[in-house]
Amino acid sequence: MEQNKLSKATLGRVPVYLSFLKSLDENIKTISATTIAKQLGFGEVQVRKDLGAISATGKPRVGYIRSELTARLEELLENEDGNAVIVGAGRLGKALLDYTGFKDYGINMLAAFDVKISDEETSKGGKKLLPVSELSSFCKKNNVKLGVIAVPTKNAQDVCNLLCESGVKAIWCFAACRLYKPADVIIQYENMALSLAHLKMQVK
Amino acid sequence: MEQNKLSKATLGRVPVYLSFLKSLDENIKTISATTIAKQLGFGEVQVRKDLGAISATGKPRVGYIRSELTARLEELLENEDGNAVIVGAGRLGKALLDYTGFKDYGINMLAAFDVKISDEETSKGGKKLLPVSELSSFCKKNNVKLGVIAVPTKNAQDVCNLLCESGVKAIWCFAACRLYKPADVIIQYENMALSLAHLKMQVK
Repeated sequence: MEQNKLSKATLGRVPVYLSFLKSLDENIKTISATTIAKQLGFGEVQVRKDLGAISATGKPRVGYIRSELTARLEELLENEDGNAVIVGAGRLGKALLDYTGFKDYGINMLAAFDVKISDEETSKGGKKLLPVSELSSFCKKNNVKLGVIAVPTKNAQDVCNLLCESGVKAIWCFAACRLYKPADVIIQYENMALSLAHLKMQVK
Repeated sequence: MEQNKLSKATLGRVPVYLSFLKSLDENIKTISATTIAKQLGFGEVQVRKDLGAISATGKPRVGYIRSELTARLEELLENEDGNAVIVGAGRLGKALLDYTGFKDYGINMLAAFDVKISDEETSKGGKKLLPVSELSSFCKKNNVKLGVIAVPTKNAQDVCNLLCESGVKAIWCFAACRLYKPADVIIQYENMALSLAHLKMQVK
């Protein structure tokens, strides 16, 4: 997949480009990098670099074909393999479950799992809360490839094992630990304290 | 401040080095980079680079003076200017308020503020929940330099203004927006969806 090479910063701007293109009058069929940059307040070099990285090529004196560029951006954010689950339905897990920003990036946050859940509970946002005993069958049935670990550190390895056995290929881990995992599974650790500590360090 | 130059990755390992040094038998007065690397499972080059970046210099055949190295690491994590507040006491705000990992990095998460708070409420973890009308006086009284924005996007700019007027110099913003701010205030944006989307993109 060529998307693999997109930087996080460029990916972050994909929904911005897309909503801008969709907001244009329907008579506009082509658009230049200069116009996009000016309208969005981005640098022109950055726009050219971003659109180049997503394999869109503008034509001299014409610019980008709007329909082609829109299709390419949509393809990048498409929902294929975007089904995700959270394990750990504490405050963090529930906050992530009801967070509405995921869908802008083609991620369907389907449900959160925990040991203490009884049955047929839902979150404030109407998402499913399910017992962890159902995790594996749920992931297989819904072809879930993304898992979020929001359990205490002492349970994180068990949850990781369970997610990997259930077919999950990428794990976003909020527990403060290092996990053992199969070679074909990617783990990204999120250390909330470190982000704030690093920000603090830059003051003054 | 020389700490300004520490990378986030190095800073992330500071608590690990520190707890390792503290765990050693008290008779151990010096320690080599080789031993630290072996015991922690880090690369030796990385350990030398990390400790070099925090201005610790080992002596040939002796290694690092344990007491000096410990003091230097503690200094990096010291609590000066580590007082922080959260604005927005929804799920995310409360999850961050009770998150126990901040103290490892010298951050005191003191309280969360919201419009809907009545009085003398506390979080599950026993932290203060206060009405936002008290934010400014609280920040000034407690010399708060760090603020977290965990309110909906439409309220984020007002909260940012209030934090800046209250003396906050670094803001960690979870709202999906760009904020106007004084030149001497640093803002770091946290886009949770983007982190997961970028992870998703690396699968396969």
